[in-house]
Amino acid sequence: MKAEVIAVGTELLLGQIANTNGQWISKEFASLGIPVYQHSVVGDNMKRVEDIFQAAHSRSDVIVVTGGLGPTEDDLTREAAQKIIGQRLLEDQQAMEKIALYYEKNKQTMTANNRKQALVFEEGIVLPNQEGMAPGQIVEHDGRAWIFLPGVPSEMKSLMKSGVLPYLQRSYKLQSDIVSEMMYFIGIGESTLENKLSALISQQTNPTLAPLASVGEVGLRITATGETGDEAREKIAVMKETILEIVGSYYYGSDNVSIESTVRDLLNKRGYRLGAAESLTGGKFIERLIALPGASTVIQGSLVAYTPLMKEKVIGVAPSLIKEHGTISNECAETMAINAKRILEADVAISFTGVAGPESSEGQEPGTVFIGLQIADERPSVYQFQFEGSRDKIRSRAVKKGYELIFHHIKNL
Amino acid sequence: MKAEVIAVGTELLLGQIANTNGQWISKEFASLGIPVYQHSVVGDNMKRVEDIFQAAHSRSDVIVVTGGLGPTEDDLTREAAQKIIGQRLLEDQQAMEKIALYYEKNKQTMTANNRKQALVFEEGIVLPNQEGMAPGQIVEHDGRAWIFLPGVPSEMKSLMKSGVLPYLQRSYKLQSDIVSEMMYFIGIGESTLENKLSALISQQTNPTLAPLASVGEVGLRITATGETGDEAREKIAVMKETILEIVGSYYYGSDNVSIESTVRDLLNKRGYRLGAAESLTGGKFIERLIALPGASTVIQGSLVAYTPLMKEKVIGVAPSLIKEHGTISNECAETMAINAKRILEADVAISFTGVAGPESSEGQEPGTVFIGLQIADERPSVYQFQFEGSRDKIRSRAVKKGYELIFHHIKNL
Repeated sequence: MKAEVIAVGTELLLGQIANTNGQWISKEFASLGIPVYQHSVVGDNMKRVEDIFQAAHSRSDVIVVTGGLGPTEDDLTREAAQKIIGQRLLEDQQAMEKIALYYEKNKQTMTANNRKQALVFEEGIVLPNQEGMAPGQIVEHDGRAWIFLPGVPSEMKSLMKSGVLPYLQRSYKLQSDIVSEMMYFIGIGESTLENKLSALISQQTNPTLAPLASVGEVGLRITATGETGDEAREKIAVMKETILEIVGSYYYGSDNVSIESTVRDLLNKRGYRLGAAESLTGGKFIERLIALPGASTVIQGSLVAYTPLMKEKVIGVAPSLIKEHGTISNECAETMAINAKRILEADVAISFTGVAGPESSEGQEPGTVFIGLQIADERPSVYQFQFEGSRDKIRSRAVKKGYELIFHHIKNL
Repeated sequence: MKAEVIAVGTELLLGQIANTNGQWISKEFASLGIPVYQHSVVGDNMKRVEDIFQAAHSRSDVIVVTGGLGPTEDDLTREAAQKIIGQRLLEDQQAMEKIALYYEKNKQTMTANNRKQALVFEEGIVLPNQEGMAPGQIVEHDGRAWIFLPGVPSEMKSLMKSGVLPYLQRSYKLQSDIVSEMMYFIGIGESTLENKLSALISQQTNPTLAPLASVGEVGLRITATGETGDEAREKIAVMKETILEIVGSYYYGSDNVSIESTVRDLLNKRGYRLGAAESLTGGKFIERLIALPGASTVIQGSLVAYTPLMKEKVIGVAPSLIKEHGTISNECAETMAINAKRILEADVAISFTGVAGPESSEGQEPGTVFIGLQIADERPSVYQFQFEGSRDKIRSRAVKKGYELIFHHIKNL
């Protein structure tokens, strides 16, 4: 079986966005053992879209097309594909009702061009779009599977997971004979991890190990093949045990977890509620946790105080403390954590104060960050860091470090 | 002139990395007015690389190939291109010395396959690689320019800037005769915008107009060509004026602005400071503004209160109000805004309360959102919305809507 992925959209050829859809789809296909032979990006031009569809038809068994399903004249994926597939395009009633309802609810007039988004191939499988307007479609034609998905990444991913991947597993009787697990580590750098595991990484061919760094944490993908899925999974289990013996103290979970979801689950397990006092992180810390479902059982809130005056008024830091030590100090971070714990009636309280840059502040360089932490009746602790990089990177590193500190403090309670 | 970009590397087809090189090159080309017609990604396979090179040769004038120049057997860009270009491959002395020196310095033995990295086309232009081993190359053949660059982004970018872009400007006598401006609109849907501008969009060939939707706002790219840059810019100015007559009330800025930076600048101009009270948005609203430099002159802070109790304790919403109306109500949003304004000593205060989902809350459906707003001494106002989609999407829509409301309220003050 050969698969290929085609992205339609002039914005990609102008460099306004990268084709991350192509990457995401390829990763999912790789984990199912479906080989992807080509990615293409083509603009919103009928002749060129047709040409690339013809070429795909001549060489691939599974053709995934993202983008070009919207309401505008530029959106011509359906019309171009129709020249190959030959089926009629009909209005999908469910999709049309959803579009109409959207405009009704928002008290806007639906313009006629919106009907186009509900058009589907007569003999295709319609994949209802929970996240947006245009449904996804799978059309079997001439021994090939054409898969049409919206270009918006959240819509594309949701339709892939709910409709496309199950369809492919069913239709092609795919065996999960390639299995992989992504292990996540925090508090250890990529090169240190790689160094500690160097013997394993260089010797192994099955499973293979591939480290993958991101901001403040490291992933390690273990990929194994076997006659059966069970055989592959067994190989992974053995390798995982060896890895945990070496770097287990930095490990926080595998596959569909994040450090935020891990902390949420740990808080839940302990029956702890979390409160924060944020200066340079500016709501970014609490926002990451509130982004997850189930946040309401573990979160109290966050006091985002961006000025010295607000730290006094909202978090109750004494003016004399600020005068003596400044807001970017061990003392201020400690008081912020203690007071946030009291004000927000939290079991775990964390505070962030520091310099995000680009300018220095209170005579301290960008990247200087103090994080305060108080858990239950323990004594509060404060950690000082010097992070590198842009304003954005410094703030992201601080947030990630906050989760790391909470994780390491409560995982063994 | 037509350009295309080909990335060679199986790691891209496995989804291990995204083709950000394609995006970067396209952006640079767009700014020089070189139209890119296609991106392709192909694996390290001789037959398939050859096929895609043949196709590129038949349709494009400038062909940029990234990747496949390394020392391993998998690296076959040179050999595949040789079948079209026909020139001999010779060892470049400067590159070879650099490679040998590297191994000498690192006290490693240079294996024979490393010599391959120094191979260049006999009649090509060699671009010395300051950041890595394999040099870049430009080969003119059959009226086309073939450009070979390493796949490592830092090496590729450095060679593009120092060698490729100057070459293209020289050889094709490029003038900045293609100019574009991205106009941003908020509070109007993509299809409504397109409908209002449909006559302009369908009639125009120079400038051209292309709408681009994102969460809660719409971009409109105007692209004009002219004998000179000034001529193109003049065409854009005329078109822009026409557009503003039709949909100017939704326009907030062009090119390197966002609704957040626009609101920051407006607050600055009015000397206003902003405070927020956030429930379902959970810090995401204030975080967007704090992410920008210069936030400290316009932001007081945000009270992130995720539970009813915290709304009472931290924002001072009366228990009786919550008992009578619930926290997801007009009344609660109004009190949150009024109290946030007072507590945070703000000139502009905004509040968010609602249901992000996935579950309903207080008998209200996911997507129900109330936004309260009070500006200076004006009466507070509350707006109710019903947003669609996932938890993430509902929260993002609420945040964007908050900026939209502030923008529309203060732009004409």
